[in-house]
Amino acid sequence: MTDRRAAWRDRLYVIIFGHQTPAGKRFDVVLIWSILASVFAVILDSVRSINAQYGDLLYVAEWGFTLLFTVEYVLRLLSARKPSRYARSFFGIIDLFAILPTYLSLLIPGSQYFLVIRVLRVLRVFRVLKLVEYLGEADVLMGALRESRRKITVFLIAVLALAVILGSLMYIVEGHTHGFTSIPRSIYWTIVTLTTVGYGDISPQTTLGQTVASAIMMLGYAIIAIPTGIVTVELSKVRGGGGLERGRGTAEGPPPPPPARRQCPDCGLLGHDPDAAHCKWCGEEL
Amino acid sequence: MTDRRAAWRDRLYVIIFGHQTPAGKRFDVVLIWSILASVFAVILDSVRSINAQYGDLLYVAEWGFTLLFTVEYVLRLLSARKPSRYARSFFGIIDLFAILPTYLSLLIPGSQYFLVIRVLRVLRVFRVLKLVEYLGEADVLMGALRESRRKITVFLIAVLALAVILGSLMYIVEGHTHGFTSIPRSIYWTIVTLTTVGYGDISPQTTLGQTVASAIMMLGYAIIAIPTGIVTVELSKVRGGGGLERGRGTAEGPPPPPPARRQCPDCGLLGHDPDAAHCKWCGEEL
Amino acid sequence: MTDRRAAWRDRLYVIIFGHQTPAGKRFDVVLIWSILASVFAVILDSVRSINAQYGDLLYVAEWGFTLLFTVEYVLRLLSARKPSRYARSFFGIIDLFAILPTYLSLLIPGSQYFLVIRVLRVLRVFRVLKLVEYLGEADVLMGALRESRRKITVFLIAVLALAVILGSLMYIVEGHTHGFTSIPRSIYWTIVTLTTVGYGDISPQTTLGQTVASAIMMLGYAIIAIPTGIVTVELSKVRGGGGLERGRGTAEGPPPPPPARRQCPDCGLLGHDPDAAHCKWCGEEL
Amino acid sequence: MTDRRAAWRDRLYVIIFGHQTPAGKRFDVVLIWSILASVFAVILDSVRSINAQYGDLLYVAEWGFTLLFTVEYVLRLLSARKPSRYARSFFGIIDLFAILPTYLSLLIPGSQYFLVIRVLRVLRVFRVLKLVEYLGEADVLMGALRESRRKITVFLIAVLALAVILGSLMYIVEGHTHGFTSIPRSIYWTIVTLTTVGYGDISPQTTLGQTVASAIMMLGYAIIAIPTGIVTVELSKVRGGGGLERGRGTAEGPPPPPPARRQCPDCGLLGHDPDAAHCKWCGEEL
Repeated sequence: MTDRRAAWRDRLYVIIFGHQTPAGKRFDVVLIWSILASVFAVILDSVRSINAQYGDLLYVAEWGFTLLFTVEYVLRLLSARKPSRYARSFFGIIDLFAILPTYLSLLIPGSQYFLVIRVLRVLRVFRVLKLVEYLGEADVLMGALRESRRKITVFLIAVLALAVILGSLMYIVEGHTHGFTSIPRSIYWTIVTLTTVGYGDISPQTTLGQTVASAIMMLGYAIIAIPTGIVTVELSKVRGGGGLERGRGTAEGPPPPPPARRQCPDCGLLGHDPDAAHCKWCGEEL
Repeated sequence: MTDRRAAWRDRLYVIIFGHQTPAGKRFDVVLIWSILASVFAVILDSVRSINAQYGDLLYVAEWGFTLLFTVEYVLRLLSARKPSRYARSFFGIIDLFAILPTYLSLLIPGSQYFLVIRVLRVLRVFRVLKLVEYLGEADVLMGALRESRRKITVFLIAVLALAVILGSLMYIVEGHTHGFTSIPRSIYWTIVTLTTVGYGDISPQTTLGQTVASAIMMLGYAIIAIPTGIVTVELSKVRGGGGLERGRGTAEGPPPPPPARRQCPDCGLLGHDPDAAHCKWCGEEL
Repeated sequence: MTDRRAAWRDRLYVIIFGHQTPAGKRFDVVLIWSILASVFAVILDSVRSINAQYGDLLYVAEWGFTLLFTVEYVLRLLSARKPSRYARSFFGIIDLFAILPTYLSLLIPGSQYFLVIRVLRVLRVFRVLKLVEYLGEADVLMGALRESRRKITVFLIAVLALAVILGSLMYIVEGHTHGFTSIPRSIYWTIVTLTTVGYGDISPQTTLGQTVASAIMMLGYAIIAIPTGIVTVELSKVRGGGGLERGRGTAEGPPPPPPARRQCPDCGLLGHDPDAAHCKWCGEEL
Repeated sequence: MTDRRAAWRDRLYVIIFGHQTPAGKRFDVVLIWSILASVFAVILDSVRSINAQYGDLLYVAEWGFTLLFTVEYVLRLLSARKPSRYARSFFGIIDLFAILPTYLSLLIPGSQYFLVIRVLRVLRVFRVLKLVEYLGEADVLMGALRESRRKITVFLIAVLALAVILGSLMYIVEGHTHGFTSIPRSIYWTIVTLTTVGYGDISPQTTLGQTVASAIMMLGYAIIAIPTGIVTVELSKVRGGGGLERGRGTAEGPPPPPPARRQCPDCGLLGHDPDAAHCKWCGEEL
């Protein structure tokens, strides 16, 4: 590789991956508006009346955006310091999935609607706007969810088992004639009821069915408290650990120093694990 | 300006802006009942049967209230110590918006229904009734919401991105024939489902669609816990900081003195920021 | 009054108001089953098919129960130590309201359905079963709600003002043709949506209406967190104060002695205010 | 009993009840897949179109699974160290109920749908996969629910009493013509509304009915906070007591030693009560 090519690659890298230089910022702003415009085009294209009138225009726009994003993806691969790491990173995969559906739609009609996955690319906005604060908040939320993962898994398994049993019970009670035409459909109804969504497309008609349904609703009312309680306790724990709002200085000695919050030099992400050697978002070395 | 005019202005100020004198109290009570009556008139006017019978009477009443509030607005402007500050204050803007729709309805039919914005004027009742306690409570709630602002923003952006992707998925799964006629409509359905509102105007009919919908409901069930957790933790923090219910005296030294809660001499509002020079509600100097 | 009559009154008092003697316990058990049976009779009587077949029997049963409870009410008045205090107590008023509707139904047809207020009489069961523990729990719940009263009032006023404004907005957006036939009806729809009930009897049809509705749902999703946060924080505070689960012994000195939980000698109610001279449930002197 | 039979029994015990040996693990994995397959067969059989085509096959499969599970149940009884304790244990009862409905369906048609109770057998998966961590989490959840039991009972009784009274009120307000055809049906509607399920199969049509319904919804909105608050506080207490996340070392002396978390030598369950002599899941001695 000649020096000239290496210099080109470095310049591209600064523009495409960097956010500090004016050129890098302009690139990011144009990119995000292109993403939003392309998602908007896909959504509009699905409305029949708009499709009838502007279908051809939107078809052209879709191919235009796809070619643009394909070029961008190739440039990212070319300029990335370690192309294989970029290709396997969170954003690398999203970037690929954001262009594939258009090409697939040549083979499988209808698959172009999967293009809305492009909306995930907009998450880059957090990096661009240097919303370090916001990333920190997302970090706290994700931390609380990660801690609650096991409790919520147990909870969801229990709710699903409950839905299978109660759904079968309602199938026996209400029978074929009132919309409960099969056990899978009854299970669907039970989940609609337990989660308090309540479409009303299926609803019990017999007195016994309504009594059982009332009991299921009261149950749903009571168990909706459980995930809320789990997340609240975890969030208050994450806060207590991270922000030291409470407990500071209650012990004899001074409070322990807060864990060093390492920040990625490239994308500004905070909250890396202590043993992380690379940024988990952009792969930059820490 | 002659002394006489200044004396008049001061007397008007005491009646219109003050709440201590008997005249000021009477003015406030009359004002609030007028506001409630005018909002009630607008609401009644929208009922077709009432409009058919009492339409003319309500039309006259609407103009009567509007002229009354216009005179009041002009008097407020005339008597306020710094008219431009009143005009730009929260209540100054509301007072203007509360009279504009009637005049606009001469140009744009239908805009008179915006008059219900008058209901916001009723918030003055907190000042009139000297519900200092209630203002303090509203203060605590607003403080908790202000602190949660960033976390709730991250949460809402994530929910919206999820709704776009899941809505498109359901559009592909269910197709045109079962009410999911376009992606925007599918996104609307997804939000109706995720928030557990569940109108049932659109509901999945295919087995695959009902399975995906069940997963979306379980998801909505799990993530409804997140804003609740955020607000609860912030509320418990605000309480901890403001009311010192817990933590008082747990350290070696005495607890730090509570922050001076400055009270507005005019409207009695508590909880001003330490650097505030004027009451944030009524603009009175502190 | 002769001694004999006083002795009779005392004996009646022990049976009717007391729960310690075998006779008093038997009286209470019979009473509670009578109350449940009478409420059940009123509910059954409203079912058309049952009314057609057993209407006369249920009519007789209703008068039987009413006469029974009338005799009981008169005996309570006669045997109570201070009849006027009993008549004005919580249970005294409920006892009166539990017999009035039957007599009123002679004058106003249909008022007999108010007899279900009798179900409140069943709350006596807590006293009878000496569920002191349960009363303590109810006490904690009521305490948390009492403390949250002001915050929840502010919250409900804000939600109502919001419902009026958003309801009017939807009335303008959707118009007469899609079920939003008047502002009161639109306000009803807004409350149905904000509270995530979502009947679907009225639902937006236009794209703009569905967009606004989605925003209202997201808002409802966010603000449902507020009352939960309020009650959770109050409950954790009540627990902290009453049960001393946490904080015990964190200060220098020993923990302060728990506030004396005075117990009513008659009904066993705990948690009286420090300045209470009489039990707030049964009026017994403390 | 000869030595040979005793040896056989021990070998069976290790395979059927144990999870450590390769043979025991294989048995468990086969068992769990059989259970899932049998539940899946029952659910599929209820779909009319599948029943029409594969009904005979599924009927054979059901009898096959039932005979298999019958043999397994008999083997468990034969090999268990104390057969009567196994028969009365949680899983012993479930194992019996998982085979009974097929035999009952010979007498009572339709009862085969109760076979879905087999899904409860899948809870064994927690033991098999040695998900000790998950069991600990379920333990924390169950502990919080057990502690909240009394408060939730008081809450549910109060909600039911409220539903009876509000349901009767709506019956009087809306009358026979708008779907509120009887008090039981009105109570069903009230529970649907209070729990924010909101099917919309019955909805108020009159202005007064919609006003009362709005008040009921606001009430439901406010009281949904109560179970959430209860569970959250209990969960935070269980965490505080069990995990000592907070409060550790805040007092003068050292923190009390954590309660010994005894682990079952057979199934690995943690969190046994201090006075437990046997594992509450598998009955193994501790």
